[in-house]
Parts: sequence; C-alpha cells; structure tokens
Amino acid sequence: MKTMLKPAFAALLIRASFTTAISHAADLLPSWNEGQAKQSIVAFVEKVTKSGSPDFVPVAERIATFDNDGTLWAEQPMYFQLFFVMDRIKALAPQHPEWKTKEPFASLLRGDVKTALASGEAGLVPLVLATHASLTTEEFEQAVTGWLATAKHPKTGRPFTEMVYQPMLELLAYLRANGFKTFIVSGGGIEFMRPWAEKTYGIPPEQVVGSSGGLKYELRDGQPVIVKLPSIVLNDDKDGKPVGIQRHIGRRPIAAFGNSDGDFQMLEWTTSGKGARFGLIVHHTDAAREWAYDRQSHIGRLDKGLDAAKAKGWIVVSMKDDWKTIFPK
Amino acid sequence: MKTMLKPAFAALLIRASFTTAISHAADLLPSWNEGQAKQSIVAFVEKVTKSGSPDFVPVAERIATFDNDGTLWAEQPMYFQLFFVMDRIKALAPQHPEWKTKEPFASLLRGDVKTALASGEAGLVPLVLATHASLTTEEFEQAVTGWLATAKHPKTGRPFTEMVYQPMLELLAYLRANGFKTFIVSGGGIEFMRPWAEKTYGIPPEQVVGSSGGLKYELRDGQPVIVKLPSIVLNDDKDGKPVGIQRHIGRRPIAAFGNSDGDFQMLEWTTSGKGARFGLIVHHTDAAREWAYDRQSHIGRLDKGLDAAKAKGWIVVSMKDDWKTIFPK
Repeated sequence: MKTMLKPAFAALLIRASFTTAISHAADLLPSWNEGQAKQSIVAFVEKVTKSGSPDFVPVAERIATFDNDGTLWAEQPMYFQLFFVMDRIKALAPQHPEWKTKEPFASLLRGDVKTALASGEAGLVPLVLATHASLTTEEFEQAVTGWLATAKHPKTGRPFTEMVYQPMLELLAYLRANGFKTFIVSGGGIEFMRPWAEKTYGIPPEQVVGSSGGLKYELRDGQPVIVKLPSIVLNDDKDGKPVGIQRHIGRRPIAAFGNSDGDFQMLEWTTSGKGARFGLIVHHTDAAREWAYDRQSHIGRLDKGLDAAKAKGWIVVSMKDDWKTIFPK
Repeated sequence: MKTMLKPAFAALLIRASFTTAISHAADLLPSWNEGQAKQSIVAFVEKVTKSGSPDFVPVAERIATFDNDGTLWAEQPMYFQLFFVMDRIKALAPQHPEWKTKEPFASLLRGDVKTALASGEAGLVPLVLATHASLTTEEFEQAVTGWLATAKHPKTGRPFTEMVYQPMLELLAYLRANGFKTFIVSGGGIEFMRPWAEKTYGIPPEQVVGSSGGLKYELRDGQPVIVKLPSIVLNDDKDGKPVGIQRHIGRRPIAAFGNSDGDFQMLEWTTSGKGARFGLIVHHTDAAREWAYDRQSHIGRLDKGLDAAKAKGWIVVSMKDDWKTIFPK
C-alpha cells in the first residue's frame, strides 16, 4: 500500500487545479502517438474540466470505467484467470480423485485444454466454481497473490501483472490527475482482480466491479469469516456491465473504455447519457508486438462494436498505429 | 453537486497533513460532550494517523462504515423509507383497484398501518416490491427526490433529511479530514439512499451500500434504461452487512458505527480484524430530544449488542449524555 501513497498524493495535489485540465496534458501520455485517438482523449478531458465550459462536469461526476481483459492487460492465448483456474485444478487434483474421469476436469488434467473448453463458457462454470468457491475471501486472496508471484505468461515468460498496457496505465493516471475516479468493470472475477488492481493500476478494491459469486458470513472457531459460495450474483459481461455499474457505482460514467463486444452495453450506456461523453475501443491490430484479432476471435471478439463505433462516436484505437509501446519496459 | 465541492476540497487540502491527526481535532466535534465516547474517537483517529505509530494505518485502508437508520438519521416512529412506501402506495392506488381488497395494501390504504405491518418484515416485502420495482433507476431516483422535497416527519414537521444527527455529521467530516473513506452500510434500500446521501452526508453514490433489488438493462424506444426488478440480490442487514461490505468495498473496515442488533455482525467483522479497530453503538437514550428505546423496540432493537459491547470493546454512545445537540439547528 505504501508504494501507492506517493502517486496518490501527487494526484491530490494536482487536483488542486482541477477546474482546468492540467497543462501539458500530452506529456502525461508519452506512449501514445500523436493522432486522432490521443487528440480525442485530451480534447474530452479539457472540455469537461474547463470551468465555465458548457461541457464542464463536476469532479464528483467524473466517473470513468475500464474493462480489464484486453483493455488494461492482455487476454491471449486465453483469459489470464483461466491460467489461474488450470493451475489450481492441478494443485487440487490429489484431493479430488473423481476428477480423473469427470469432464471437463479429466481433459484439463491430461493437458487437453481445447477439449476441456470446447463447450465454451458453459464448460468454464464447473471449473471456476471448483476453484473459487468454499474458500474464505482471505484464503482466496492469498491463493491469487501466491499464484501471481510465480506464474508466467506462456508466450512472453513475464509475470501476468506485467502484461498490462503502458498507454492505458498512463491514461488511468492522466484521468485521475484531472479529478476522475477510475473503476474497473470486467467480466473477470471481482475477487480475482482486487488483490493486485491497486498496486498494478492504482485502482482500490472498492473501485473494482467484476463477476461476483455468492458470499456467506459465518463464525469458524469463534472467528468471523466470509465464505465464497458456488453461486453467481453478477455476470458482469455484456448487459451485465451496466447492471454492475449501477449496483456498485450508482451513477452513469461519463467515459468508458473497452475492447470487445462484451463492452458494447457499457459503452452504449455511458455514451447515451446527457452532456459530454466518451467511449473508446482498444482494437488489437498488432500481431508483431501483441496479438491481432477481432471479428473471428473466441477470446475478446470485437464485431458488433467495430460496426457501431462510427455511428456511436466511439474512438477506435489501433494498438499498432496509436501506441508507441505496448507493455511497460 | 457544486455545493459539495467546497468541503470536499477542504478535506483534500487537510489530507496534505494526513500522517498525523489534524490538530485541534476536538474542535471538529463541537456537538460532542467531553467524555469517554469523544475521547475514544479522537484517541483512535490519532493513533491510526500518526506516522511511525505501531497502529498507523495507510490512507487506502482507512475505511469507515456507518449504518443509516438510527445511526445517521432517526428511525422513529418507523423507518423513514416506509413513509415513502406508504405515500407511494396511496399515489399508485388509483392504478391498482385490486389493492382495495388485498392485504397488506387494503389496511394501509384505510390508514391502519399497524395491521398492514403486523406480520413484521415479511409483510413489507410486497409493499416494497410494489413501490420500488418496474421503474427505471432514473424514474425511481426522481420519485425519491420528489417525495423528499415535500414530505415531513409526522412528529417534528421537519423534512426527513433534516432528521439527521448533527454529532454524526461532524464525525463523518472529522474522519474524512483524517483520510478516511466513509461508507453507508444500511438495511435500507440502496437506490432509496443514493439520491440524497451525497448532499446530506457528503457520501457519494458509489460509497452507499444497502439492500438491493435485481436490475435489468434494456432498450426502450432505442434508449438504454436500467429497470428495477421485483427480486432481492442483497438483504443488507445482520449477517448480510459483512457480505455487502465485501461485495462493494472488498476490504474490511477499520471502524464501524451502528445502533441496533442489525449492525452486530458489521461491528463484529470490523473489530475482529488485525491492528487498531473501532466499533461504536449509538444508544437511543433521549426521550426528551429524540426517542428512548433499545431491547424491546420493534424498530432498531438493541439487545445483543448492548450485552456484548463491553467484552467486544465497543463504545456505547448515550445520546442523552454524550450529545450536546441532536439535530442540526
């Protein structure tokens, strides 16, 4: 936590001048190439922070929501949370001999990920429940933290928390420096993201919205614990995203950032509000430095959003053309 | 919103010295009599904010949660949200001729509140669902705001938002001035509290946790709306409070404030964490200036908490003895 204090404090001081966008805004986005995407971001921030402007938005209403997978960090060759699930299945297998003959566990334990996930998202549910439920929230947090400390991305060999997008880290900091409150609104598990979102993105647990399971408060040996249940109370994807926003934030964002059709309704809800609004889609166009995929991808499919962007006024960022750097150095 | 900027901004500036409790702390709590309650509050805040103290807590972890009914505003002769429900039932009655013969609507429309609510909380459910569901979140917000603008408390004749406790308003501001993030965690409806919590308490919608109904995102005439459903996703009372805290905040508070046995588990969860913790119960002891009730009350019953407070180290505030003023002048 202490490491977060300094930038947070700097942001507070910078907020002292939050009636107008901080000067040299462009310098806070050094990994963005000059172009329409960067210009649009800066123009939006300047008009909503300029005192007396018809587009001025009070600080309390400067809410910005970010998808996580594919928007703030990478999501190929599959959602990073699935690597966590797979590693946990392997670790828990000795306690579950029945998994050897029970699908999708059996395929996964043989290393046959394709078959295990062949049925799509429906096949994931038993895997996620088997690895996420029954633990207390504190045990689960330790499981996530412990896994992240050693797990490496299969292609780059880097820790998953280093597979974040440098230009987006700059954008988060730039918005916060201009009085915005930044939230994650992701289809990923809320308890999976919270343990590292503060250190990685500067986003505290209370500003993380994600798919959520049931919880139960109980006493164990006289000590209170909160236990994760094998039930789902929010599927924070597609039309679940505006629902998650309303439940957790309680007001409509003025800016939203996504990358796939899972973010369509979040962008639609955000940009159809009154006053100045901003919607942005990160388009994965860089096969050399990251991955290139959109309409045909099973992970992070972007089809409807790509067609709608122009009419809706959403900015489409080309990772290849708009970003100088992809990952932090 | 603009009216909130000034105190919020002042708090930000004061935070610049947040490594130690702000000086003359006592002056920020002028409606509190000198005594054990006030001393305990100040001593706790000073030790968790003192840099280098073994009890020091980083700003990001300074989470304080407040019950609403009976803790921040009054709750007699019945929860204020029920006055809203009753007024809405009356207003909606012409569209629902069947209510004339259907309980609990029929009793309520005859003015017989006692019979309508005789079955306790179970009897409330159809009333709450009939008045809270089917509207969009924006329509519901307008209904709450419109009602508050004219509704008056039956005993004092004051608007309900003036039936708040002056010493608690000071406490909220004092904690925020010392780097705390203040949350409401109430059994009351989340969408019922959000429209006025920011103006009344300085608590923004994203820091309001309450009982929550299902929500659905849909398009109406091409415009996106979020519709309230007749289902319950969180009963934010008793053991539902730590669940609400985990869902919305994602970390354990270090201080919690309540007044009834509905707050027991929130206080238990908060004060059983490691490090410095603080629990406080507002005890309604002032029949002359407010109401006096505890173990036998149907509303805001305080029995188990009164017995447990000493052993748990929770401070019990006597409204009669500890508070100079009850309501704002």
